[in-house]
Amino acid sequence: MTSRRVAFFISDSTAITAETLGQSLLSQFDHMQFDKVTLPFIDNVWKAEGAVIQINNTAKKTRKRPIVFSTLINTEIRQRIMNSDAIIFDFFDTFIGRLENELHMESSHAIGRYHGIVNDKTYHLRIDAVNYALNNDDGMTTKYYNRADVVLIGVSRTGKTPTCLYLALQFGVYAANYPLTEEDIAKTPIRMPALLLPYRKKLYGLSINPERLHVIRSERRPDSRYASLSQCQHEVKSVESLYASEQIPFLNISYMSVEEIATTILHESGLHRRVF
Amino acid sequence: MTSRRVAFFISDSTAITAETLGQSLLSQFDHMQFDKVTLPFIDNVWKAEGAVIQINNTAKKTRKRPIVFSTLINTEIRQRIMNSDAIIFDFFDTFIGRLENELHMESSHAIGRYHGIVNDKTYHLRIDAVNYALNNDDGMTTKYYNRADVVLIGVSRTGKTPTCLYLALQFGVYAANYPLTEEDIAKTPIRMPALLLPYRKKLYGLSINPERLHVIRSERRPDSRYASLSQCQHEVKSVESLYASEQIPFLNISYMSVEEIATTILHESGLHRRVF
Repeated sequence: MTSRRVAFFISDSTAITAETLGQSLLSQFDHMQFDKVTLPFIDNVWKAEGAVIQINNTAKKTRKRPIVFSTLINTEIRQRIMNSDAIIFDFFDTFIGRLENELHMESSHAIGRYHGIVNDKTYHLRIDAVNYALNNDDGMTTKYYNRADVVLIGVSRTGKTPTCLYLALQFGVYAANYPLTEEDIAKTPIRMPALLLPYRKKLYGLSINPERLHVIRSERRPDSRYASLSQCQHEVKSVESLYASEQIPFLNISYMSVEEIATTILHESGLHRRVF
Repeated sequence: MTSRRVAFFISDSTAITAETLGQSLLSQFDHMQFDKVTLPFIDNVWKAEGAVIQINNTAKKTRKRPIVFSTLINTEIRQRIMNSDAIIFDFFDTFIGRLENELHMESSHAIGRYHGIVNDKTYHLRIDAVNYALNNDDGMTTKYYNRADVVLIGVSRTGKTPTCLYLALQFGVYAANYPLTEEDIAKTPIRMPALLLPYRKKLYGLSINPERLHVIRSERRPDSRYASLSQCQHEVKSVESLYASEQIPFLNISYMSVEEIATTILHESGLHRRVF
């Protein structure tokens, strides 16, 4: 039998931190189903009272006390939530005291610090990196590859575009991507497209299991030659031999999330992140 | 005097949770500078030993014990890190026991659960939402607005594109955006572009302080008419009167991060998120 429980994510700001922390704990319980409710921007006591009513009503209705993950900096607001009929995991309350002791310093208790706008430089960098990714997506041009931190290559549907966007948004990394097409890989022996040769050191390859590629492409164009298993096998085999002969580092992304692909590339290619 | 300290973010997976945890705590200390080091994918004891050496060397060199934020699920790996010369804030160690008690259940101790690929459905949804945002960016077409969850409108440089991409990647929301151009706002009285009328209920406006818009546009095209304060004032005034007369909800994004804009829109317009 699968049990259900309601989980609340509560914050005086975006609640991204509360969600990230809470979700990574909840994902450790396979046999539970969680109904998730996010309450962001709880930044005054009236809103806190509203949240308490919602929590207490849930407790009554489900006959189980909800689980609350919170990152509340204001003591008065936190106190209200603490008095609700829930089990509460407050992240600031738990850690900030020990950190203050270690640093011999009081914390600022300022709201929305981390996911708020930090400074103009960070803001511009992220936007600029996103625009770079958009303007250098899918091989539309190679003219600006001199500005790229990394150029992802791979066959169609290996997650190049979302990975570039994630690298830009999360890390301020300038990432371009170039699709290795049928034409690129038709030659024997397969050779690096000449356009890419000047940027060889920036190249990072993506690969995938042919069976998985077949499934992903079939979503897009069912029963096409493009999606057929034999075509997928052929393309993957070709690009992997290209990566090997040209000594391009590469990653098999078959069962990876966009975050995992981006983090792995950042880490393995020693890229400098501009946003932390 | 500003003090410095080295902070490590250590995880057996992407380290996104460890970074989120640590950064939101560190951002509460204004008068400290932190040198940040992320060590992701520490998933065996040899890598853990390598991390310990790095931590201990840092302690020796800086003569201050580093701060370690970790989300290590494997007990043996965690134990190694715990024995390093650092103050350690381990997120699982702190919370998982209390949560297990509450749920009367042992946790699975599985690595990479949250930021790993969850299931095919989530994967496809996010990729599909990203492709939607890319194909419906900057008013390139309004043909597919029937599929949109939300259509952002606003003058140039108000963060429409990164917000749409963030909504797609983070929440699986289908977001299009349409720039209100000079031509759109030249009429008196200003009127909603006819193309947008069928989608009135999906519209969400972005606005900005003219002074801030002037600064942002000047980065892009210094000393242009486009970036001039008077032009920015005129455009902002026009779109805000449009939002008012057409009763379009809107947000002043002057000092907001992309995360804050996206979260606020999600929350205020009651959008259904497809990815949690």
